[in-house]
Amino acid sequence: MNKSQAQQLDLNDPLAEKRAEFCLNPGQIYLDGNSLGLLTKASRLRAKEVTVDQWGEGLITSWNTHHWIDLPVKIGEKIAPLIGAEPGQVICTDSVSVNLFKLLACALAMQPGRIKVLSQTDNFPTDLYITQGINALLGENRCQILLVEDEDIADAIDESVAVLLLTQVNFRSGKVHDMRQITELAHQSGALVIWDLAHSAGAIPVSLDCCEVDFAVGCGYKFLNGGPGAPAFIYAAKRHHQQIQQPLQGWMGHRSPFEFSPTYRPAEGIQSFLVGTPPVISMSILDAALDVFQDIDLCQLQEKSKALSEFFIGLITQYAQLSEFVMASPEQSEERGSQLSFHHPDAYAICQALIDEGVIADFRAPDILRFGITPLYTSFCDIWVAVERLVRVVEQGSYRRPEYQIKARVT
Amino acid sequence: MNKSQAQQLDLNDPLAEKRAEFCLNPGQIYLDGNSLGLLTKASRLRAKEVTVDQWGEGLITSWNTHHWIDLPVKIGEKIAPLIGAEPGQVICTDSVSVNLFKLLACALAMQPGRIKVLSQTDNFPTDLYITQGINALLGENRCQILLVEDEDIADAIDESVAVLLLTQVNFRSGKVHDMRQITELAHQSGALVIWDLAHSAGAIPVSLDCCEVDFAVGCGYKFLNGGPGAPAFIYAAKRHHQQIQQPLQGWMGHRSPFEFSPTYRPAEGIQSFLVGTPPVISMSILDAALDVFQDIDLCQLQEKSKALSEFFIGLITQYAQLSEFVMASPEQSEERGSQLSFHHPDAYAICQALIDEGVIADFRAPDILRFGITPLYTSFCDIWVAVERLVRVVEQGSYRRPEYQIKARVT
Repeated sequence: MNKSQAQQLDLNDPLAEKRAEFCLNPGQIYLDGNSLGLLTKASRLRAKEVTVDQWGEGLITSWNTHHWIDLPVKIGEKIAPLIGAEPGQVICTDSVSVNLFKLLACALAMQPGRIKVLSQTDNFPTDLYITQGINALLGENRCQILLVEDEDIADAIDESVAVLLLTQVNFRSGKVHDMRQITELAHQSGALVIWDLAHSAGAIPVSLDCCEVDFAVGCGYKFLNGGPGAPAFIYAAKRHHQQIQQPLQGWMGHRSPFEFSPTYRPAEGIQSFLVGTPPVISMSILDAALDVFQDIDLCQLQEKSKALSEFFIGLITQYAQLSEFVMASPEQSEERGSQLSFHHPDAYAICQALIDEGVIADFRAPDILRFGITPLYTSFCDIWVAVERLVRVVEQGSYRRPEYQIKARVT
Repeated sequence: MNKSQAQQLDLNDPLAEKRAEFCLNPGQIYLDGNSLGLLTKASRLRAKEVTVDQWGEGLITSWNTHHWIDLPVKIGEKIAPLIGAEPGQVICTDSVSVNLFKLLACALAMQPGRIKVLSQTDNFPTDLYITQGINALLGENRCQILLVEDEDIADAIDESVAVLLLTQVNFRSGKVHDMRQITELAHQSGALVIWDLAHSAGAIPVSLDCCEVDFAVGCGYKFLNGGPGAPAFIYAAKRHHQQIQQPLQGWMGHRSPFEFSPTYRPAEGIQSFLVGTPPVISMSILDAALDVFQDIDLCQLQEKSKALSEFFIGLITQYAQLSEFVMASPEQSEERGSQLSFHHPDAYAICQALIDEGVIADFRAPDILRFGITPLYTSFCDIWVAVERLVRVVEQGSYRRPEYQIKARVT
């Protein structure tokens, strides 16, 4: 594998022109879009519009004239086709963590006689923390937690399980759960399923309706490119809408918020998951970012993701200098989300040195170097350059410099 | 009272130069800053910086290099002096509604043997809805709600009350509760107090520490000018920090979020109220907006608010055409927040017609025309012009046009 191959692959790439919709930094290879997606040109423009024109000039009237009030539903409807949901089932609101709380409480209430929440030890920590928070609030007689290893999930599903809570794509390894199979298994035992799509939405085709998923949450700032800490989303299958009773009852989830009635009456359906006034500026920027997906076939996106990944793996394999990198992601591309993770004893230092070389990847404890594959704006040449720089960092040992050694980190 | 008086008052106004820090719309008089504050020039600049430079160029590294991770604490410390709080007790996070949920659950847990939440029938609805949500989640044996009228609050405080939840400034009338007196009364009965400062923070001097308040929430987008739906804040008195156990346990509230440990261990103190990843862009814009308060004495601000209000009331009184306007706010300026509300049978239509005349006020059901008084950017001449236009709308009857009549509204 070589540079001209990369160039040829780029020439044949039907998604190549999408790259022009993003604000790329010259000389930088960004392989961390699974953590924070790139700024789109549409979002850059919208940031100005929503701040200067809509807020600055329109002020309070923009709630109507610029449809701020409709943003949660409008964004939900833009996300819906990306996760295989028919209209009326997705809404943009709050954070993944807060949304998990709503869904878990709601799902537990729908399962009289069952109190067990089953999840995976290696689920993303906030999913576990939220579950532990519900457990602490409701007590052991209303919520118990069972955490099992990946390979033991199927066996642990039985008729005592109220809710199965899983993240579809593992944040460390990128391993993908079989959503259809696990959901079906859970339903056979009468359990409800909440899927966390943090690393799925906008990355791989998701078919919530087809898989008969009950509930899902997902993240706006990773593959959806909504900006740092962009609001999250909730999916609730229509068949459950009559039974939604979520505990974070705020005025935006009221049937008629501007009646200012002292008694809560939930809005119908998915809108009852709204709570407080949404962060309009962050939400508008996410709204604009989603337009990049308008003409995207997610299967085509996944095909390019796989091709980029295979090219990446091929390059890693062909350099003897990189022999210490051990795949932490599944070998089979069908079993991976849109990322590649490698174990390396010096993963942290190498990550830092790579960043200084203009290749942005990230580190996940204890020893994982993680590369997000984002086909909308990553080219085959990018991958080629990234691996060239990785070879250089390893070969020259620049990562051994004291400033690259492990210390307190926040990302 | 006349225009030259207004001009003279402006000339003598020590806060007059603050106006230059805001993006004012030519010809418009904005009297709705109690609902959505004006855009500051600092926020306009920051919106561009955080989007284009920090996100677009710095990308994931900006969590460290641009201190995104510190924003919740940093903003909390900026708000603290505005509400009379020593450092380490205020943090910026989520929405008022979500924060009320955390505090109510936390406060109830701190009151073994007590389950009653006392509040006011005319509290802002979301405060009541959140309480009703907690009640529905925890059940009648762990949370009961007692709502009383304003004048019955003192009598209703007894040793059965676990938590007293009040909004300091009433959203309709602007009437201010005596925070010190009520808090003391509640403490005498062993109740904890949560104050909602939505219409107080940045509007009137607040002395949480001095009044020995237990907990408080407040809003970023009203008098703090943080932008539409700006994140909210939480105050928790230091003496309670050891006992904080709030149920929305998200990864940002973890002691070491980037350890990705499967077990939740709360951060120390106020940081344990963080939940998910914050909406960085909205939060940064609030951060910039707060700098306008850096050299502000809130007592001086309140003095100007009172003077503007008295001037406003004086003008209303002197026009026979405005005789149908009946004060809904307390007559005594000491008992009012920074707003003036008037009953009028055609309040909605007049509000719409006024907006078309370039005077932005708002309407609150059933018959209240509400004017926010924001001394940082409102001049006495503004008030004079606003009332002139109000007289014209009433005199000419333009508010009777069909398009101004009541219909579905969102603000």
